[in-house]
Amino acid sequence: MSHYLDIKLIDHAKHLYPICRSLTGEGVRKTLDYFECFHKELKRYKIKSGEKVYDWEIPLEWNIKDAYIENLDTGQKYAEFKRNNLHVVGYSKPINREIDLSTLSKKIYTLNYQEEWIPYITTYYKQDWGFCLSEKDKNNLPEGNYKAFIDSTLKEGYLEYSTALIKGKSKKEIFFSSYICHPSMANNEISGPIVLCAILDYIKKQYKSPKYSYRFALTPETIGSIAFIKKFEKKLKKNVICGFNLSCVGDERGYSFVQTPYNNTITDSALRASLIGKNNAKEYSFLERGSDERQYCSPGVDIPLCTFCKSKFGEYPEYHTSADNFDLVTDKGLQDSFEVMKTIVDCFELGLRPLLIKKCEPQLGKRNLYPTISIKCEGRHPAQTRMDILAYSNGKNSVFDIANTIQIELKKVISEITLLKENNIIKDNML
Amino acid sequence: MSHYLDIKLIDHAKHLYPICRSLTGEGVRKTLDYFECFHKELKRYKIKSGEKVYDWEIPLEWNIKDAYIENLDTGQKYAEFKRNNLHVVGYSKPINREIDLSTLSKKIYTLNYQEEWIPYITTYYKQDWGFCLSEKDKNNLPEGNYKAFIDSTLKEGYLEYSTALIKGKSKKEIFFSSYICHPSMANNEISGPIVLCAILDYIKKQYKSPKYSYRFALTPETIGSIAFIKKFEKKLKKNVICGFNLSCVGDERGYSFVQTPYNNTITDSALRASLIGKNNAKEYSFLERGSDERQYCSPGVDIPLCTFCKSKFGEYPEYHTSADNFDLVTDKGLQDSFEVMKTIVDCFELGLRPLLIKKCEPQLGKRNLYPTISIKCEGRHPAQTRMDILAYSNGKNSVFDIANTIQIELKKVISEITLLKENNIIKDNML
Amino acid sequence: MSHYLDIKLIDHAKHLYPICRSLTGEGVRKTLDYFECFHKELKRYKIKSGEKVYDWEIPLEWNIKDAYIENLDTGQKYAEFKRNNLHVVGYSKPINREIDLSTLSKKIYTLNYQEEWIPYITTYYKQDWGFCLSEKDKNNLPEGNYKAFIDSTLKEGYLEYSTALIKGKSKKEIFFSSYICHPSMANNEISGPIVLCAILDYIKKQYKSPKYSYRFALTPETIGSIAFIKKFEKKLKKNVICGFNLSCVGDERGYSFVQTPYNNTITDSALRASLIGKNNAKEYSFLERGSDERQYCSPGVDIPLCTFCKSKFGEYPEYHTSADNFDLVTDKGLQDSFEVMKTIVDCFELGLRPLLIKKCEPQLGKRNLYPTISIKCEGRHPAQTRMDILAYSNGKNSVFDIANTIQIELKKVISEITLLKENNIIKDNML
Repeated sequence: MSHYLDIKLIDHAKHLYPICRSLTGEGVRKTLDYFECFHKELKRYKIKSGEKVYDWEIPLEWNIKDAYIENLDTGQKYAEFKRNNLHVVGYSKPINREIDLSTLSKKIYTLNYQEEWIPYITTYYKQDWGFCLSEKDKNNLPEGNYKAFIDSTLKEGYLEYSTALIKGKSKKEIFFSSYICHPSMANNEISGPIVLCAILDYIKKQYKSPKYSYRFALTPETIGSIAFIKKFEKKLKKNVICGFNLSCVGDERGYSFVQTPYNNTITDSALRASLIGKNNAKEYSFLERGSDERQYCSPGVDIPLCTFCKSKFGEYPEYHTSADNFDLVTDKGLQDSFEVMKTIVDCFELGLRPLLIKKCEPQLGKRNLYPTISIKCEGRHPAQTRMDILAYSNGKNSVFDIANTIQIELKKVISEITLLKENNIIKDNML
Repeated sequence: MSHYLDIKLIDHAKHLYPICRSLTGEGVRKTLDYFECFHKELKRYKIKSGEKVYDWEIPLEWNIKDAYIENLDTGQKYAEFKRNNLHVVGYSKPINREIDLSTLSKKIYTLNYQEEWIPYITTYYKQDWGFCLSEKDKNNLPEGNYKAFIDSTLKEGYLEYSTALIKGKSKKEIFFSSYICHPSMANNEISGPIVLCAILDYIKKQYKSPKYSYRFALTPETIGSIAFIKKFEKKLKKNVICGFNLSCVGDERGYSFVQTPYNNTITDSALRASLIGKNNAKEYSFLERGSDERQYCSPGVDIPLCTFCKSKFGEYPEYHTSADNFDLVTDKGLQDSFEVMKTIVDCFELGLRPLLIKKCEPQLGKRNLYPTISIKCEGRHPAQTRMDILAYSNGKNSVFDIANTIQIELKKVISEITLLKENNIIKDNML
Repeated sequence: MSHYLDIKLIDHAKHLYPICRSLTGEGVRKTLDYFECFHKELKRYKIKSGEKVYDWEIPLEWNIKDAYIENLDTGQKYAEFKRNNLHVVGYSKPINREIDLSTLSKKIYTLNYQEEWIPYITTYYKQDWGFCLSEKDKNNLPEGNYKAFIDSTLKEGYLEYSTALIKGKSKKEIFFSSYICHPSMANNEISGPIVLCAILDYIKKQYKSPKYSYRFALTPETIGSIAFIKKFEKKLKKNVICGFNLSCVGDERGYSFVQTPYNNTITDSALRASLIGKNNAKEYSFLERGSDERQYCSPGVDIPLCTFCKSKFGEYPEYHTSADNFDLVTDKGLQDSFEVMKTIVDCFELGLRPLLIKKCEPQLGKRNLYPTISIKCEGRHPAQTRMDILAYSNGKNSVFDIANTIQIELKKVISEITLLKENNIIKDNML
């Protein structure tokens, strides 16, 4: 069998896109099966419907075979689940009922700002049903009697998620999460799991015996991450020093992240550094949160986790619509996000907190790391970045802090630190 | 007898306005008598003239029966104390002397920027005498000989102040001070004591068994507050967690406060939060201090106290003039200040430092505190404020900190916190 | 013999300017001899070539008697060392070789932005040779054969520096450094040592028994300061609470300093306060460092030292050229820098951390330090600065912190503090 990274990220995404995922059910299982196929490190966890997790209760398992609206006069079907799984409101209870158009209309959701797109709607925590249509299609529904048909089940079952731990020399963990509960939308959210598994693959290949430990979680959003936190609370709180939730990481429009509540963790610093030199990069306050950072950063959990995005959820027009597809998400978009995460992992493994080995500035000249003739420079000194990194290599500042202080791209900082390590000028003061 | 709050605040103010107050003397006594009538909790303290308090000495007691200037040619009287007690320089020694106009002129103070207003002048710490007139009246004094007449006494006596303590479950105190040494001016300063006694009444009625203790002090400015601090130093330093000095709290022009020296106390946070959403709200640095915050915040005393004002002393044209009257001070002005203080008291009593009871976000939907169908929102999410409060309810942030972080009016924050407490989602982590 | 300050600073500078200084050799010796003549406190230290200091090695000793280029056709000499010692690349090895113009040209350095000026070039750490000419003179060299002649030696010898310690009541030290390795340039760098020795003289005369200890170092730049740090590491790290490196302190164009790496030391505060009210004052981030602050502030050394400059090195056009002469450096320029340092020393000796003796505001009026009649002020209150200083005299804030908080010139703050000390209102809480 091929390795995960032998296949293009966009092809993984396209393979998984059609599956109808939700908080629970077959879609989640198929999706996790797929990733577990590539990564034996991923272990499946199942929690029974009705089980309590903190303030929440695991919901019934939802499965769906088919759904549509049928005009009983013409036999024409609309909002066919088999054409697009967004047509059904997520977690709709089963229905098979004759209904007149005006009553039916109240159960049909549309977008008022884009008449061609189908919205994505769910009703997880109140038993109900509904359909989603484009505004245009809804307006074109002929008068008459209809059948509303949803062949779904809501039964005792399980909520499932997968998690992996790659053990390193240190028990301190870098943590990555994403969610596998969204139906056919590309950026939000098949992109996150796709990139998460790429990171997992990268670490396995690149770092046979990593310095730090790496934990991964693929969960249904909110209830899934809450269940995961409940199960792993002690370990997460004790060990996670840096965490990333991946969401909407497949487009090419920019880079962004949601700061932790107090914008004061190594994760904030890491993502801030990652964005140096990138076009259309933006930081959002925790007040603009909206993904699983809501759980990981909640009071009492307090994991230093940021959500990393390309275009932030809610900030791009295709969000939560049928237009969140492969016109928006590209292989380059996914690769660029993967690249950001790889660079951060490399920083941890290379030496998170560089420490000057000898006091005072080292003599770079004797190692051919500095011009030997002193000439009045024009512009930036050729060894300036190198010297600046050393000036802040006190064993307390992280590589990220240093990059942010000197405002040099993280890749350049890494290449300088690599050189300085090779020359025995700095060493790593591990966290 | 009626309760204090049964009478309109403006009527209390108008009742006390005519009294000639100063650092000491009958005016102070009458004023304190009035408040003690309503509040048996207020205890009177007397300190003898000549007694040392820190670097100061209690001054002689000053009393005055009458004062005027008389033109000896016409018998016409000017600057009559009985018409306006501002006409006499505060703490003037007795005088009864014939004097020519040009010599007399040097003892007459006016305002050069407003020809109709009488200035307010004192000579507390050097025995002297003088009159205050409007610029216009001074210019119209006819030539001739005059009698300068001040029927005052400066004798061994007492400086007096009143203080109250309402004991709560905690010994930690919220402290309110104002001063009762200003003659007939409305904003500066009968407004402060008026509102202070309203707060005292409010706490007594609203909180039979309050969580926190509440201390109140009505003192002559500077020397009075210094004497009070000397007497209560240990208790104040040990117990006061939040303090407010009230001055110029009766006009309707805006809201302001003077920050503590390092702008880093719960009081700064409380007043900052109180001003969210208010028009013409302004913070002043401690460098712009000028009321009794000068003593309470002095090095070695270090009480976390801010002076709260509507228009700040010194920043409105009528300040320290005869125009500081009931054209400026209104019942609404006083009530609005009272409202600010009530809201702050309510925050302490409601639960100063909200703490999420269970980890992760609570499930608001099952309590009907969250919409159950997820639709892409336009504008602010209906439960956003609720969720934002919870995101910062870590038992360390005060309600004020939270309001400042999310920039939502304190009243709205209080109503949300009340709801969340009722639903057993948060509890109070008392200071 | 006269005292150092009996001679004008500019005359000291002009006396030392002609000497050909470098990292090592006779020029350094003569320069140190001169200063030691005036200051018996300065002790000479010698370190052998080849000795290891941290990551560095003491270089060979360089001495030079003569150097020039001679046109063998005309006998005309160019780039004569005896006319200007900048003509020879510093640390050039001996050479005596016939050479054609085009080959010679590659060993001649010029400035491309100013055709009249000779650049200053060194080749400390790679054995090489070269000449420096003005662009104009280089372009005018006639065709033909040349002799390149440098009568220098590079031999085992010593690196030398001098250091002094004036012991005070406290072992805590204020430290001053400058460097004595630059040939004939006035601002960078004979100005620094000139002013440093003025401070030494000032302290000796002004403070017979100073509160704090004062340490001084005159070293060759980089390798010299590294050798000095190596020798005195323990003492410096234990005792130095505030340090200044003096460089380019002789012009009249402005004032500047280079912040410590985290801009958070008493030295940053001191220089910031010194610059209040000065024209053309500028702070530079540590990222713009370039003098011996590079060593003193390096990780593991961590001395709270800033480099103080008038025009910062590298920021004025004459820097590292023959135009860095006495058109640029003036007696007033040197004196003004001396004045800044004197004021800082005075702050330490006067009482670095003023502490209010009695609680609450002192009664300034009874000491004639406050107007006794209260009149509504226009503009700044006459005693405002005095009161503001007291408001922050908590025994933790330094005089510099206070000046920065209230934004009043340090000299004015000192005069107020002097008055307040004389009146027993504040005392010194020594560091």
